[in-house]
Amino acid sequence: MSLNTFGHLFRVTTWGESHGPALGATVDGCPPGVPVDEAFLQQFLDKRRPGQNKHTTQRQEADAVKILSGVFEGQTTGTPVQLMIENTDQRSRDYGEIAQTFRPGHADITYHQKYGVRDYRGGGRSSARETAARVAAGGLARAALKALVPGLEVVGYMTRMGDVTIDRDAFDWDEIARNDFWVPDAGAVGIWAEYLQGIRKAHDSVGAEIEVVCRGAPAGLGAPVYGKLDTDLAAAMMSINAVKGVEIGEGMAAARLKGTENADEIFMGEAGPEYSSNHAGGVLGGISTGQDIVVRFAVKPTSSILTPRRSIRLDGSPTEVITKGRHDPCVGIRAVPVAEAMMACVILDHYLLHRGQVGDGPRGVIG
Amino acid sequence: MSLNTFGHLFRVTTWGESHGPALGATVDGCPPGVPVDEAFLQQFLDKRRPGQNKHTTQRQEADAVKILSGVFEGQTTGTPVQLMIENTDQRSRDYGEIAQTFRPGHADITYHQKYGVRDYRGGGRSSARETAARVAAGGLARAALKALVPGLEVVGYMTRMGDVTIDRDAFDWDEIARNDFWVPDAGAVGIWAEYLQGIRKAHDSVGAEIEVVCRGAPAGLGAPVYGKLDTDLAAAMMSINAVKGVEIGEGMAAARLKGTENADEIFMGEAGPEYSSNHAGGVLGGISTGQDIVVRFAVKPTSSILTPRRSIRLDGSPTEVITKGRHDPCVGIRAVPVAEAMMACVILDHYLLHRGQVGDGPRGVIG
Amino acid sequence: MSLNTFGHLFRVTTWGESHGPALGATVDGCPPGVPVDEAFLQQFLDKRRPGQNKHTTQRQEADAVKILSGVFEGQTTGTPVQLMIENTDQRSRDYGEIAQTFRPGHADITYHQKYGVRDYRGGGRSSARETAARVAAGGLARAALKALVPGLEVVGYMTRMGDVTIDRDAFDWDEIARNDFWVPDAGAVGIWAEYLQGIRKAHDSVGAEIEVVCRGAPAGLGAPVYGKLDTDLAAAMMSINAVKGVEIGEGMAAARLKGTENADEIFMGEAGPEYSSNHAGGVLGGISTGQDIVVRFAVKPTSSILTPRRSIRLDGSPTEVITKGRHDPCVGIRAVPVAEAMMACVILDHYLLHRGQVGDGPRGVIG
Amino acid sequence: MSLNTFGHLFRVTTWGESHGPALGATVDGCPPGVPVDEAFLQQFLDKRRPGQNKHTTQRQEADAVKILSGVFEGQTTGTPVQLMIENTDQRSRDYGEIAQTFRPGHADITYHQKYGVRDYRGGGRSSARETAARVAAGGLARAALKALVPGLEVVGYMTRMGDVTIDRDAFDWDEIARNDFWVPDAGAVGIWAEYLQGIRKAHDSVGAEIEVVCRGAPAGLGAPVYGKLDTDLAAAMMSINAVKGVEIGEGMAAARLKGTENADEIFMGEAGPEYSSNHAGGVLGGISTGQDIVVRFAVKPTSSILTPRRSIRLDGSPTEVITKGRHDPCVGIRAVPVAEAMMACVILDHYLLHRGQVGDGPRGVIG
Repeated sequence: MSLNTFGHLFRVTTWGESHGPALGATVDGCPPGVPVDEAFLQQFLDKRRPGQNKHTTQRQEADAVKILSGVFEGQTTGTPVQLMIENTDQRSRDYGEIAQTFRPGHADITYHQKYGVRDYRGGGRSSARETAARVAAGGLARAALKALVPGLEVVGYMTRMGDVTIDRDAFDWDEIARNDFWVPDAGAVGIWAEYLQGIRKAHDSVGAEIEVVCRGAPAGLGAPVYGKLDTDLAAAMMSINAVKGVEIGEGMAAARLKGTENADEIFMGEAGPEYSSNHAGGVLGGISTGQDIVVRFAVKPTSSILTPRRSIRLDGSPTEVITKGRHDPCVGIRAVPVAEAMMACVILDHYLLHRGQVGDGPRGVIG
Repeated sequence: MSLNTFGHLFRVTTWGESHGPALGATVDGCPPGVPVDEAFLQQFLDKRRPGQNKHTTQRQEADAVKILSGVFEGQTTGTPVQLMIENTDQRSRDYGEIAQTFRPGHADITYHQKYGVRDYRGGGRSSARETAARVAAGGLARAALKALVPGLEVVGYMTRMGDVTIDRDAFDWDEIARNDFWVPDAGAVGIWAEYLQGIRKAHDSVGAEIEVVCRGAPAGLGAPVYGKLDTDLAAAMMSINAVKGVEIGEGMAAARLKGTENADEIFMGEAGPEYSSNHAGGVLGGISTGQDIVVRFAVKPTSSILTPRRSIRLDGSPTEVITKGRHDPCVGIRAVPVAEAMMACVILDHYLLHRGQVGDGPRGVIG
Repeated sequence: MSLNTFGHLFRVTTWGESHGPALGATVDGCPPGVPVDEAFLQQFLDKRRPGQNKHTTQRQEADAVKILSGVFEGQTTGTPVQLMIENTDQRSRDYGEIAQTFRPGHADITYHQKYGVRDYRGGGRSSARETAARVAAGGLARAALKALVPGLEVVGYMTRMGDVTIDRDAFDWDEIARNDFWVPDAGAVGIWAEYLQGIRKAHDSVGAEIEVVCRGAPAGLGAPVYGKLDTDLAAAMMSINAVKGVEIGEGMAAARLKGTENADEIFMGEAGPEYSSNHAGGVLGGISTGQDIVVRFAVKPTSSILTPRRSIRLDGSPTEVITKGRHDPCVGIRAVPVAEAMMACVILDHYLLHRGQVGDGPRGVIG
Repeated sequence: MSLNTFGHLFRVTTWGESHGPALGATVDGCPPGVPVDEAFLQQFLDKRRPGQNKHTTQRQEADAVKILSGVFEGQTTGTPVQLMIENTDQRSRDYGEIAQTFRPGHADITYHQKYGVRDYRGGGRSSARETAARVAAGGLARAALKALVPGLEVVGYMTRMGDVTIDRDAFDWDEIARNDFWVPDAGAVGIWAEYLQGIRKAHDSVGAEIEVVCRGAPAGLGAPVYGKLDTDLAAAMMSINAVKGVEIGEGMAAARLKGTENADEIFMGEAGPEYSSNHAGGVLGGISTGQDIVVRFAVKPTSSILTPRRSIRLDGSPTEVITKGRHDPCVGIRAVPVAEAMMACVILDHYLLHRGQVGDGPRGVIG
């Protein structure tokens, strides 16, 4: 990871500000011959797009992605793929106050302190709009994975929003795409909607916990000791706006477990090793086991709220900040497609990295 | 991060296996003119060294670090610093069974599946011995930070071990270095010792939670959007053996908070902005605020236990694994100096990165 | 250098194909607060732009650069700068034959062999149009250098075109910008024009030698041993289309020299060390001496000529290739602004790299 | 390339100073399962080793390479390989004068100006001794290439030393290993020996030109546009001490050629495309054609000569420098095995990079 670039071989550089003319992702290192077009990518952008349901910001952005390079006659050429999304809903407004004030919980103050200059319109580079570019790049990664690893799937869903959680006993993969919260529990939907309505009415916001799972990844992805699969997944998730914690498998709960409880015992199955459980989250020593790869992360509550908070101005004078405007009461909802995109990029990157070092063929056969 | 290297400008490449002749760290990009010698580095290695107290493995390793390059007449020259630690306690033994068997919870099976070949002696590259090299590199980072940012401190401590925790109301910085558990709570020490004794007698092991704090870091370290300070800290911690979760500030608990609760309000202090609280953990938008930078992580219980666990052999046949030998019942204890080292490396790296892009001088002044 | 990215801290990723909708450069790591706008960049693009004089291709491209991100209110913000150039002169034509045929001396055949798919329109990614993006990025580098190192200049010029050369005794810096060949020798212009006219009439093309000089760079830029200033300059120049050789200072002629001839003796001047000569080309041990940094390179003759050359088709059948269309008889002419851009990028990158590792202040003072 | 590291996937970081306890190479990203041992590597080090023939320095170094990690039971494990060479011939001496004086043509002055501190003993990091580490790493690259691309060969030889050259009509591959100059022309050996004897007696030194050829590399290695094969080869060669120019194929002579002369016409052969000539040096558009890859470079004359040269001291006072001691009158001789090593590393690196992005299988078939 190097400032605005992530990835080893599948390298994604995002660019652009919230209220500039456009933003996008420059993707280098994509394998050639991958079938992809704008419509394929657009489906993922539409999942993240604001204004899609009543629980997210009502800012209207088409978020239409254009492929400017690297794709020819419907397939990737192996050269850089430029994915551009034009900003269309940049409401003309007076930025006088925002330019002078630091919103608590935002990057306004740190960007100012670091650079001495900042694009204050809509948060500039620190806006969550940057994640649209990640979703576009993630769509390309999915297209490549589809071609290279048939059957591999990356699916994200919410597991908690403030005080409400899902019922893991009611887990239903098919339910995820059916509701506004990407929850795998049909019974939760109504409760969550009501809960969020209460938050919104109280002029407040709320945090969330999201889980992303990669199913069907082969064993052997990841590398010691700083290119571990879980290291890169942790970095990928932590780089998403508002994320404050990342877990693999048992995550923070591992601190409470005993060795006898935590052991994933190994058995020989039809197609290779199988495990009695998946406390490890599909990663041992930084390398995938072939089990589900399970990542979980927490998103803090939106800092932009209608309840006044104390802050200072550029000149050091005290002020109170109320953030009016079109903000999500729970940014965690729209973080789901973003996290899926990041995971797809990491998995593809490690697939290529493994193929580079070790080759396509089978390595350590068991049994 | 690139396989066995981490860092952008202060780049650390570790090498070596548990039972090879030596291991070490090749550190490139260290500023010149930093006063350092082997004795300075050794103090940090001694904190991590096995056999130091009755709660850690009784393997005897001198862990004596040698500086082979990059230091001349007591100061760094700006060229690569090679830090080598020879392995001295490689007990001669029969590895026949270990070579054929995969220990549950270890990287044995994934290394085999990835590479088709593995150094099975003591876990090879996946052994926690690799972290000795990190501690040496971290010592060098501390020497550089000492010269560049007077007053900056990096301190780690345990906050939980299985069922026992510290009492945050009894927090005492000075206590940390006084006890075997690096806990900042004198009252906890006896309770923890007794608890761990019970775990050991039950032929079991236990997880832990560690917190590392950087105090005195300037505002402005870190960069959007994949070179965020918290992104690199998350990667650094997740790359440590057995770590399953990483948190910044509120961490996973942020999912339960409301925006009104989570806001760190801003005031003008004598020397610059001050905050009413530090839910953010000292990082906003990936850039340091000047507050304490707070990272927390969980370590899983040691997989090597005396209680038998089911597994398979190379040929797929079933077996039971009991790991005899010299293993820590709680690897979290020795993870404390390792995590401090990683944080020191990340902070120094971002200090240099910031200086490269933005320069030495003050940038966005407030007030 | 990593596929389509070059630079350590000032990182330029170019993207785009000759006949796609657009091409550009994603520039990460630019210092903040650098005054720049599209008009400043456009002057460099206009130097490279086709159709500017009668000796270059008559393809008409506006080559108008748009800044899509990273610049706010007339100065850089420290976030990625996206520089986009739309392709406007994409003549509609039948690509049937070109799609099936490999032009000798072009990348057609190697792109096909590598990727199995290629954008054959105008050479796709391998087209010299890609260098427009470099020139845009180089303009940004110049803007930053102007702000950071007052007085530093990067100037390129031709020294040879086939059989004709400049007269070094008639060297005149001011002449360079006045003629169509960027030659520092007014007497050469007419001779060169006539010579090139002859080449064109003979349905042929010709190679060229270009020299680029950086004046006013401080001592201390560059680093051992793979981040040497001359190493990065060599890579930068060799990455330009059609370049087959790169020299620093004496270059290949150094093979013929004796030690007594090659020595640049050192004296103490008013402002620091001075040298009796500059055989070294301003670089010792990979680090700048403060003298002029002198790079020279050779460009092969355009492969696209009207004289038929034998080749094969995709199916292996033999064919003859005549490249009609709008091609430069000497691509070396337009390589001058490209090489200046590359040098500006390398110098800025090493300035930032040096500042990161060593800091802003003076280091080893002499005298 | 990143300070002291080169390579994308096969990453070599060298460390160590001329008169420190040891130097070496940390090699990350080597494929697993490559058969290699110290004896295999030693044969390449012995070619570079000083004191081997009467034309090179009489410094006595065993240059015995030790493998400290990454190789287990005779094959690589895929983890970092540490190659260490201990310095044994560090004559105890008085460094007083050398510490205060800058030798013309050496990096003494630029290291001082950059870092403010330098290891002045024997040139420290800038000494050609660093290349011993490259040769060790190159040996590992050769071992990997041997396993991955049977039949591939990398061979270097001298083509010029000052005023004497080889006769290309007498070119004999088998002769190269038979003489002290690595010349492919038996008739040249005696003439060269006499010529060098004259140089030495005149207390002078002389430059050289070396050519390195890779035979048997597959088509498709290299990538647009900053990861070109020739770009990386140019950087690799230019990073070697004393190198001032690098050429691919025609090299600088391309500036004199016409398009009709330079064209490598293409024909269909038994096993794939064949070419009428190899002006391109085996690389088109940065990607290998399958022909011989031909790199040529010039090495300047050794700056350390017995003839006095004027210089200054640390305090700015004038002095004269005579470099006594054990220096090669033509460093180009020992540059041959170094250049072979660099080429082997670059070729392997691009092989892995290609396999990562594109896979093992055949891509664009012709015919």
